[in-house]
Amino acid sequence: MCSPEIVRRARDGVPQPSRRALFGLAGITALAAVSPAPALAAPRPGAVVDLTHTLTPQLPVWPGNPPIAMVPVAWHASGGFGQLALGYWEHTGTHLDAPAHRIPGGATTEALAVEDLLAPLVVIDISAKAAVDADAVVTVADLDRWRARHGEIPERAFVAMYSGWERRIAEPSTFLNLDPQGRPHAPGFSGEAAEYLVAQCGIVGVGVDTLSLDCGADPDYGAHTAVLGAGRYGVEMLANLATVPPIGARVVVGAPKHAGGTGGPCRVLALT
Amino acid sequence: MCSPEIVRRARDGVPQPSRRALFGLAGITALAAVSPAPALAAPRPGAVVDLTHTLTPQLPVWPGNPPIAMVPVAWHASGGFGQLALGYWEHTGTHLDAPAHRIPGGATTEALAVEDLLAPLVVIDISAKAAVDADAVVTVADLDRWRARHGEIPERAFVAMYSGWERRIAEPSTFLNLDPQGRPHAPGFSGEAAEYLVAQCGIVGVGVDTLSLDCGADPDYGAHTAVLGAGRYGVEMLANLATVPPIGARVVVGAPKHAGGTGGPCRVLALT
Repeated sequence: MCSPEIVRRARDGVPQPSRRALFGLAGITALAAVSPAPALAAPRPGAVVDLTHTLTPQLPVWPGNPPIAMVPVAWHASGGFGQLALGYWEHTGTHLDAPAHRIPGGATTEALAVEDLLAPLVVIDISAKAAVDADAVVTVADLDRWRARHGEIPERAFVAMYSGWERRIAEPSTFLNLDPQGRPHAPGFSGEAAEYLVAQCGIVGVGVDTLSLDCGADPDYGAHTAVLGAGRYGVEMLANLATVPPIGARVVVGAPKHAGGTGGPCRVLALT
Repeated sequence: MCSPEIVRRARDGVPQPSRRALFGLAGITALAAVSPAPALAAPRPGAVVDLTHTLTPQLPVWPGNPPIAMVPVAWHASGGFGQLALGYWEHTGTHLDAPAHRIPGGATTEALAVEDLLAPLVVIDISAKAAVDADAVVTVADLDRWRARHGEIPERAFVAMYSGWERRIAEPSTFLNLDPQGRPHAPGFSGEAAEYLVAQCGIVGVGVDTLSLDCGADPDYGAHTAVLGAGRYGVEMLANLATVPPIGARVVVGAPKHAGGTGGPCRVLALT
């Protein structure tokens, strides 16, 4: 027998209602439906902050993608060890976008430079405008405002958008926020801001607390194209960005390393 | 169409001959079959060293476990993005052992303390005795010798065994090294050394460059039991341990964070 706790969690994870909840709702949800903002608490210097959501079958996924499947395949009672089999599409949970996700022939997961997985962390907070506009984006003007307040963006930084969207994560319909045409509406980077970060700031990658580097309203995926097209990487569905400073922390991106991958779930830690 | 490169890698990954190679060979392989030792090169201070093997279907897996499966499910030409579906058992590639792997009701992947994923890295080199004894183990005497030379093991360290076994990784039959009864023979920690590290040194976890924290000859899995039973974690199949110093680097363990997991592939980086 497997650990009862493991069996229970795996069984409870089977998403009977969640697929309907994810894909059946069409209206853009009211902002009143989201949870209140978390209290901002600066971490002590030397702390490790987890920027990773726990991956469950209930987490929102991009429309059409399945939730993660977890099935016990080994049991303590029969061999002394428990083990699950996992099945998922790569772009699930807090996950990496490798260049190959957007760019045919682009770098795959195992080809990312390991030096780029440790970087200064920059957080651009657009939660105020995202609270009243689901299609809000990080603009070049936002970057200019950040620089006026905090100084230059360091070389080889990882630049993350904090939109406050993770407050919606317990309710996938509000996190996805589909319009009547089934298109998600959530904040992201503008294509211009992404191009600026790549060309002017020499970033290693960008991150968002939503499901896409682009806002849902961008049919051209300008941010994906700018970042991944330049051989840089993205991380989507980051957690806890409200608890790290705008500058001063470092991020470690525990990128997956399967051969030929276009991305995948990754552990992301901020070192303050 | 998917990127031809991704399709090629996913297709080439289908392990037609490897399963037979993994499970069909019974003899303990000759030591002469392994590759020569890698040159030791100290990394520059501030460097990031990748302690993670690229995860492919050709990598050795524990007898009876399947190789990773990777299948394209999205294509650039039809939607602008490529994506793979992944299927694997958790204890595949460079991977984490959570306490729940060995201990019914033990901590699962998402419950590990995030502070324990960044730790001083200690490397215990037993490659000399492992070169002539496939059942060599890290003993308490080895730990004493290490301390006499390098000083006390720091509090909350991650202690890794370097046995040189990764030189065999391209040939799964020599890496697994099955005896006529089908039992693997490869180095690990003795149960006593693992208990000592937990009880006397306050470690956060242990790592090995083989497929098991225990040497294959230990039917009681003493190292697994000591480490995971104390709520600490293990990492198996580490890479490149010959290229990091015995003391002085820090390790970041990019542990998976799926709910209820017993472990899983993880990106492990040494910061020198």
